[in-house]
Amino acid sequence: MTEPDKAALQSVAAKSAAAESTADYWARQRARRVHLPQGQPVAHWLLTAQALTPTLTETPQPLQRWVQAIPAPHHLLRWEMVVAGTLDELQTRVWQGGEHFILDFGGHRTGHCSFNLTAVPALADAPVRLRLVFGEVPPDVAEPLHPYHGVLSAAWLPEETLTVDELPTRIRLPRRHAFRYVRVEVLATSSRFGVCFDDWLAHALTSAVGVVPALPAATPAWVRQVDLIAQATLRDCMQTVFEDGPRRDRRLWLGDLRLQALASHATVQADAVLRRCLYLFAALPRSDGMVNGCVQERPSPRPGQVMVLDYAALFAVTLQEYVQATGDLETGVTLWPVARRQVELLLARLDGDALFHDDGATWCFIDWSQTLDRDTAMQGVILFAIDRSLRLAEQIGRATDVQDWADCAHRMRAAVHRRQFDAALGLWRSGESGQLSVASQAWMVLGGVAADPAQAARALQASLAMPGVLQPTTPYLMHYVVEALVACGQRQQALAVIQDYWGAMVEAGADTFWEAFEPGQPLSTPYGDLHANSWCHAWSCTPSHFFRLAGLAAEAAAIS
Amino acid sequence: MTEPDKAALQSVAAKSAAAESTADYWARQRARRVHLPQGQPVAHWLLTAQALTPTLTETPQPLQRWVQAIPAPHHLLRWEMVVAGTLDELQTRVWQGGEHFILDFGGHRTGHCSFNLTAVPALADAPVRLRLVFGEVPPDVAEPLHPYHGVLSAAWLPEETLTVDELPTRIRLPRRHAFRYVRVEVLATSSRFGVCFDDWLAHALTSAVGVVPALPAATPAWVRQVDLIAQATLRDCMQTVFEDGPRRDRRLWLGDLRLQALASHATVQADAVLRRCLYLFAALPRSDGMVNGCVQERPSPRPGQVMVLDYAALFAVTLQEYVQATGDLETGVTLWPVARRQVELLLARLDGDALFHDDGATWCFIDWSQTLDRDTAMQGVILFAIDRSLRLAEQIGRATDVQDWADCAHRMRAAVHRRQFDAALGLWRSGESGQLSVASQAWMVLGGVAADPAQAARALQASLAMPGVLQPTTPYLMHYVVEALVACGQRQQALAVIQDYWGAMVEAGADTFWEAFEPGQPLSTPYGDLHANSWCHAWSCTPSHFFRLAGLAAEAAAIS
Repeated sequence: MTEPDKAALQSVAAKSAAAESTADYWARQRARRVHLPQGQPVAHWLLTAQALTPTLTETPQPLQRWVQAIPAPHHLLRWEMVVAGTLDELQTRVWQGGEHFILDFGGHRTGHCSFNLTAVPALADAPVRLRLVFGEVPPDVAEPLHPYHGVLSAAWLPEETLTVDELPTRIRLPRRHAFRYVRVEVLATSSRFGVCFDDWLAHALTSAVGVVPALPAATPAWVRQVDLIAQATLRDCMQTVFEDGPRRDRRLWLGDLRLQALASHATVQADAVLRRCLYLFAALPRSDGMVNGCVQERPSPRPGQVMVLDYAALFAVTLQEYVQATGDLETGVTLWPVARRQVELLLARLDGDALFHDDGATWCFIDWSQTLDRDTAMQGVILFAIDRSLRLAEQIGRATDVQDWADCAHRMRAAVHRRQFDAALGLWRSGESGQLSVASQAWMVLGGVAADPAQAARALQASLAMPGVLQPTTPYLMHYVVEALVACGQRQQALAVIQDYWGAMVEAGADTFWEAFEPGQPLSTPYGDLHANSWCHAWSCTPSHFFRLAGLAAEAAAIS
Repeated sequence: MTEPDKAALQSVAAKSAAAESTADYWARQRARRVHLPQGQPVAHWLLTAQALTPTLTETPQPLQRWVQAIPAPHHLLRWEMVVAGTLDELQTRVWQGGEHFILDFGGHRTGHCSFNLTAVPALADAPVRLRLVFGEVPPDVAEPLHPYHGVLSAAWLPEETLTVDELPTRIRLPRRHAFRYVRVEVLATSSRFGVCFDDWLAHALTSAVGVVPALPAATPAWVRQVDLIAQATLRDCMQTVFEDGPRRDRRLWLGDLRLQALASHATVQADAVLRRCLYLFAALPRSDGMVNGCVQERPSPRPGQVMVLDYAALFAVTLQEYVQATGDLETGVTLWPVARRQVELLLARLDGDALFHDDGATWCFIDWSQTLDRDTAMQGVILFAIDRSLRLAEQIGRATDVQDWADCAHRMRAAVHRRQFDAALGLWRSGESGQLSVASQAWMVLGGVAADPAQAARALQASLAMPGVLQPTTPYLMHYVVEALVACGQRQQALAVIQDYWGAMVEAGADTFWEAFEPGQPLSTPYGDLHANSWCHAWSCTPSHFFRLAGLAAEAAAIS
């Protein structure tokens, strides 16, 4: 926890009842209006964003192995990949309709796939029809994708059917995929010829080109390994925007962006891409000024029309951290009205007692958990955003814009603490049911509600260990657990969480970190079908941030 | 039958036994060698062929109807297409994953398909996956293509799966298809959007651009209708070569070429494309000089490596008719060694009694019938080729090259007539089993074996009417039946065959004429699956030739 947070907490604790009634106070807050730029300025922001579109670096990477998938019940993802033959054998093998094979590019890539296709004998008397399935993890290519039971569109399933009329030819698939493995099914040749494949390439694409600062010399191996995988995750999600995941969605989500930005500041410092993303959100708000939860880039940038309240709050946080990391005050000043507007809109949603209630009408994400009560966590997110907005206002000389926000925050902290803190357990509860969750503790700590660091640390540690407390299901929420642990000084505990959680994905063979992971239920999915999961998901890339900017690598080096 | 044929027949009938023994005579024939151009000249022929590649004319044609397929057991092809809604209704309809519809372009087209695809609401949160099935006839789009039972590659099935990432967009399918109908299956959108389609276009491609001579004013309607459909068949098969069928194979076959050339001479006079095709065959022979049954154009021209003995014989016929139609003696002189070589190679296959035996080692096509004995028909084909070669040699001043061929032909005619003519039935039999077929009669007549036109006419008419005589299964063989009827002066009978056979396809709703058609078994297929059939097949386009160059339209006008 940083100094201003502590000061705020002490102020809450010390504060007596306000002279104005709480209900009147919040009615006054809700009536406030921030006048946002409309029309021309917003259009100009879109031009700014587009001018910042990065050129992608393409790196052709050759095939590493010809593999087959062997059932492995002991393995977290159920399959083991073993060598099926040498690459020399593969390229001389003639395949007939009905046969298939699996390729392993040796690591996760976002990009295009290309190969040579030749008929044997040389004259093909019919077209060739192929089906390619792109796999980030073994189940993608070892298990049938159909029938599909997911709630997300089946069009996301990473499969392509192609018909090739003229052989020999080199094929480069026009659609981008995210893959380490490719399952190649020869659907049809003819009885008179087969096909050979060779010179397989993965054309890896990324906008991550910055030089990554080295970790301290004594950094333990497990930290280095987690760091490299986190960097690969960021790299493969960094395209012309910071995408949430290159397999599916492939979209700029604000919640993901804040975490990618943290990792970027610590590693490749892709400041221009980040600035582009901030401008995209700013340029494409809802009519009341709330930024969208996501932005779609193509065919032309447009708002995703999904509002996510906690993500909107994080706009201010991301902007403040951008300004702090880059010193680019001009962008801070330009986008300040947008950041300020998000907080205003969230404050207007509080009840007369300064408490946030998730009414279900607008999405509060926090985590993929279906059963999570989000009231308390959201209260923490808003407090976190207020705090960072105050810092940003200070940095850009606009503190007078928000001079009463500190007072708002004091009232919000007092209210949630009074209503939800279970003194016997030392934990904050959430909602009418008084639900206990790790999410609530993390966000109460980050929102500066704990009376002191010790109370914060006790709540976090108890919640992570106590039976019946709802645990995180995603690296997204797990990031905030680690961030909260770091904020209250629990650096070794933070390292332990990274080692346990991210380390378990490494154990399972992850080349990049996953969208969803519950250690106790490794095959769980937020979408009803494991094949809808994204296995390279930006919001899981923050170990690289913690190791560097939060100094956890040095911490690990010191204790190793 | 033309004058030289008659003279030859009389000569055979009059001839006494040869002084030289028959076996000795044929041993001497087989020992002859024609020295073909090798190396440079052949390479030059390929350049000549490529320089003659026509530019295709593209004609965008709008969608005509939104239809649905209704089971119609009384219909030859089992389905009736009825209007499903107006085009206005179609273009405002929003489609979700799992839905499908059928489009009707109002006639057969060879070319590309394009359309606009829009998301409703405008923001698509996932790709769209579509499956398009291209139908020449209703069963293609009304019935599932899978499971497929055909012997030809399933890659020929006219289906495309495409995934579209960015909406709205205009899509033009890169692969060419042959279609009147398109079945559009929306495999997947998402729960948050559907798709609209509009501005469907068929981009019809052809190299048939010549002005078609009109039929006589009094030509009956049925003749005009058959003629138009035959012209459409030729048009849609005429691409950068004369293809056999634009749906499947899409290849230059020599047997098809001769019939297309006849129709071309009578209609669009695509002499340059025909010349290109003759040069392609000439440039890509087998090492002994035999031309291949087919040539593949792409990615670069190459021999099809399928030898078809009757097709090889027809090279000389096609060249002779080309020279006669165009007056292009230079091409006749240049390609004469190739034409001559085919006949030499066929003569070398005759036995000591001057008879051809189909040993099964090299394909003799004649018709798709599985049970047809081809010995007698092949004897007729070779005789037909000798006759036309003699004419060609005369035209180009090379008669001395082949001065003993007339004598060969006399011996061949005498031998087959002696061995196979069943005087009691007035029919030629074939093979050891003495099989009776229409094919044998047609080719004996065209080979000039009949003693006189009356014998020819009786054999043809008897074979078409007599139970137990093997009937044609394809328009290809049916063409030669009509050609034989015309050759022996049975012009009304020729018209009747066209009206019965091609007219039955018109009755069944044909927009172009089919590859295979047995009137008694309309769902028969040479390939084990009706969906492997080609429904626009070049070898069925010759009614336009008969109506014009053989004067049958005038005949029909006179008797109507």
